[in-house]
Amino acid sequence: MDGSYAPLPALSAGGLRSARQLVQRRGRQHQDAFLAEGPQAVREALETPDEVTMLIVGEDALAIDAVRGLVEHAMQTGVRTASVPAPDLAALSDTVHAQGIVAVCRQRHPGLDDVREVRLVLVCDQVRDPGNVGTMIRAADAFGADAVVLTSGCVEPWNPKAVRASTGSLFHLPVVADVPFDDVVAWLHGRGAQVLAADANGEPLDSLARAGVLSGPVGWVVGNEAWGFGAGDLTACDRVVSVPMWGRAESLNAASAIAVCLYQTAVAQHAS
Amino acid sequence: MDGSYAPLPALSAGGLRSARQLVQRRGRQHQDAFLAEGPQAVREALETPDEVTMLIVGEDALAIDAVRGLVEHAMQTGVRTASVPAPDLAALSDTVHAQGIVAVCRQRHPGLDDVREVRLVLVCDQVRDPGNVGTMIRAADAFGADAVVLTSGCVEPWNPKAVRASTGSLFHLPVVADVPFDDVVAWLHGRGAQVLAADANGEPLDSLARAGVLSGPVGWVVGNEAWGFGAGDLTACDRVVSVPMWGRAESLNAASAIAVCLYQTAVAQHAS
Repeated sequence: MDGSYAPLPALSAGGLRSARQLVQRRGRQHQDAFLAEGPQAVREALETPDEVTMLIVGEDALAIDAVRGLVEHAMQTGVRTASVPAPDLAALSDTVHAQGIVAVCRQRHPGLDDVREVRLVLVCDQVRDPGNVGTMIRAADAFGADAVVLTSGCVEPWNPKAVRASTGSLFHLPVVADVPFDDVVAWLHGRGAQVLAADANGEPLDSLARAGVLSGPVGWVVGNEAWGFGAGDLTACDRVVSVPMWGRAESLNAASAIAVCLYQTAVAQHAS
Repeated sequence: MDGSYAPLPALSAGGLRSARQLVQRRGRQHQDAFLAEGPQAVREALETPDEVTMLIVGEDALAIDAVRGLVEHAMQTGVRTASVPAPDLAALSDTVHAQGIVAVCRQRHPGLDDVREVRLVLVCDQVRDPGNVGTMIRAADAFGADAVVLTSGCVEPWNPKAVRASTGSLFHLPVVADVPFDDVVAWLHGRGAQVLAADANGEPLDSLARAGVLSGPVGWVVGNEAWGFGAGDLTACDRVVSVPMWGRAESLNAASAIAVCLYQTAVAQHAS
């Protein structure tokens, strides 16, 4: 794109107000939309047709190659694009340094029935930290999971911190939100998967891998960061499994622990 | 502790000013000290003799059982303890919700020579995000690493976000800071360890495990979050190793990736 193309239209006051509401959960629910910020997330969002309803670009950000390329792509594919002064873009940003571009995206609401295969599934049960949920969605995507299910009480995946931590993975696999815990377990069992709770004081992950337990379809469940699982929830799972530890740390970071569980399972499944 | 004990002495204005300086890197360097915040970190710090020079407690925080227990423990072991009004404690805190208690700790500066055994070591090369460094120290501790080495250019482990993310692991194993990269590699080689760089486009981790490559002493090196390794740094390592991925994510979160590498290595080493 050279410097000769027409300047972007300015975003209307109403459009800006509407976008600003998406910073808050209530606004996201009301509009059934969310914001994806930064060149990487915007690029991933644009790969899914009809995902993006509008691009909002900082007036000073067209100097950034990655931003200019995305604007060009959006114009070619008919995605509405508008510019705002830099401070207005910063107000849409969750980070200290705004990244020049934000996509207004439609929320997708896949259901459990939309998950085609059930070989590796991650279930986040009442996980409250949006960064953790986003990082776990990213790990699930990396290890080829078929879906991520968030139980009722989990933070929504459209929270800006979750979107950012998922680094685009939110757009890669079905993320089924707001499902009662018992429904997830029944669904996994109905689809032939065993349900493994990742928690302390369980069977060691590496022993289960060696015993061949992880080779079939598996649904991994991770509990809340502070209190873990409700008692009833834990007993509904087929096994409690722990990442083995040899040092003095009491536990791993929740997202790191689930990455290890998903890795070990993916390795076992792909070897079998 | 019942209600009859004498009230804590109030922290002097000078003491508070001094503690406040520890929120900034410059103050930490100048005083060779740092802050550990919250009951868990304080408890871990108190387990190491002479680690803690003072406890600072919010005036309203003695109602918290965990805080009261730590104050009692500190009094018994002769650690100076003082109280401050809640807003002053909040000013020492890195989190939105201050946790009632902060320990002023001495910085320890172990050198490479202080690392007794070299079987599993983590090297953070120019990692800039303090949360990442803290989470990686926690993972290294969990998997029984002998030490963590931070190269020159890495964030310091006494950064409040790093201390918090390490959840006490900073006190569990030697963290050797500010070492030139080449010195770490030479030291690992001298101690009989192979040096593995965790990076994209390397040999798959699971294949190396099956081939028995991970059973001997290993130093894992992780690069900067944004740009990875400098070219010279990567060629100095014996192998480049990648966590295998099957989905559409371009990469894992850096702390998650290194947790997987450490897990796979610890499992291999303990099986052999």
